[in-house]
Amino acid sequence: MNLVDRAGTATYVETDEFAKKAIREAARWCNAVTVASSADKKFSYIPEVRAEDLPQNAAYLHITVNNTLFGTQYHRLPQLGVPLVGDLSSAMLGQLYDIEDFVLIYAGAQKNMGPAGVTVVVLRRDLLRDLPEEVPTMLDYKVQVAGRSMHNTPPCWGIYMTGLMLDWILREGGVEEMARRNNEKSGLLYEFLDNSTFYTPTARPQDRSNMNITFTLPDEALSDLFAKGAAARGLINLKGHRLVGGIRANVYNAMPIEGVRALLAYMKDFEMEHRMP
Amino acid sequence: MNLVDRAGTATYVETDEFAKKAIREAARWCNAVTVASSADKKFSYIPEVRAEDLPQNAAYLHITVNNTLFGTQYHRLPQLGVPLVGDLSSAMLGQLYDIEDFVLIYAGAQKNMGPAGVTVVVLRRDLLRDLPEEVPTMLDYKVQVAGRSMHNTPPCWGIYMTGLMLDWILREGGVEEMARRNNEKSGLLYEFLDNSTFYTPTARPQDRSNMNITFTLPDEALSDLFAKGAAARGLINLKGHRLVGGIRANVYNAMPIEGVRALLAYMKDFEMEHRMP
Repeated sequence: MNLVDRAGTATYVETDEFAKKAIREAARWCNAVTVASSADKKFSYIPEVRAEDLPQNAAYLHITVNNTLFGTQYHRLPQLGVPLVGDLSSAMLGQLYDIEDFVLIYAGAQKNMGPAGVTVVVLRRDLLRDLPEEVPTMLDYKVQVAGRSMHNTPPCWGIYMTGLMLDWILREGGVEEMARRNNEKSGLLYEFLDNSTFYTPTARPQDRSNMNITFTLPDEALSDLFAKGAAARGLINLKGHRLVGGIRANVYNAMPIEGVRALLAYMKDFEMEHRMP
Repeated sequence: MNLVDRAGTATYVETDEFAKKAIREAARWCNAVTVASSADKKFSYIPEVRAEDLPQNAAYLHITVNNTLFGTQYHRLPQLGVPLVGDLSSAMLGQLYDIEDFVLIYAGAQKNMGPAGVTVVVLRRDLLRDLPEEVPTMLDYKVQVAGRSMHNTPPCWGIYMTGLMLDWILREGGVEEMARRNNEKSGLLYEFLDNSTFYTPTARPQDRSNMNITFTLPDEALSDLFAKGAAARGLINLKGHRLVGGIRANVYNAMPIEGVRALLAYMKDFEMEHRMP
């Protein structure tokens, strides 16, 4: 609503359920065109956007930078001359990106930044413009900037907690250090998965997320058993999203490497017990 | 957006700055008609809506039930046959109202209910309908009801804290008891003000708020002095809103009667010191 007129065109890359939601929402407002999709292979990879598939008049190209459900992540951003808009909800502060590559990014705080109920938006100031009157004032970024994000009473506690988290990240070594840790944690898991004949990683190697590691077991009944047994050891929330199945290990900033080591130990035990003879 | 089409008409009573904001916002969407206003007397009273001023086709009549800046409050709701919509942001749980008198009420939690960042909406289910596609999904009450208020990740902490507040209110005796306490607290202040020749209450007696008590001193310089001296005694936030001037004492549910007694003692001392001989 802030970047494109009702008669305008916006382009989207379809990489998971959240990308789909963004596309559906944009389609209510403007001409929303899906220019690349990995739906053909269960969203297991980041699809390339080809310049010839981009409409001439696209106001922006929208990507979902980290795809929590399917465990994929952009490691190389599209550079096609069209302004890039990024949903960084689960990528922000957990992997290194160059803010200069985007004209606008937005991110729900609840993965790596703070409690649910806060959303961070960073945009290039020259994009601010007067919006049509059917756009609600609360969604008007020009108004929010003018009101220093306090046009309405802000969710003070969530902002305060996010501030404490940002302080902590800085003390720990900044986003560089967070990315290093997440790469280390996810790297241990991917290395194990790549050498396993029991577990199968689902995301294409060059597109793997450093925060959501997805894999399958020989069958879904075993996946259920795996998740239940893990929970009994205090390793929780490992069941893949109901739309995806399999197993998903989340190693956001808050997860210490000890959690990953405990998971690896459990994976070895589980395989010993359940491997077909 | 949920109750009226873009070509439709909605009616509003203008009783303070927040009512004005609501009118301006509605005017972006539909034909918003102000059918009564107390702007002529600095919003010091609740204006009557006359049936003959209501357009035939009004989708609803919107009122701001408690007006924090000017210290007025509805004690008798308009009964004109047109569906009533209420902003109860500062009235909810602090005074008794019959939910059956409204088709929709909404209230920011941050006065009597919980922390900033939560808004409560109660509406008659038969009002839910399919909305035009330019209405953002997040503002679509039908979607919110279908998603049990969790269509998006909810602000969990704010909802949890609001739940604790609701438990506390129930334990203390419910809204009846909260209203009784607020009437007692505000009653002590109004009684003192009505018998004073130094302080002047600003709201019309029959329209006085039981949570925001507004009054003036002989001049604004004295008001400033009053607020500063009060702060030195730990009585804070007494300065009237910058748009209004004077003094405003807020006695929301969280304020114990001891706070009111301390304010009254200070008011007597201040008057002794500053009364013209």
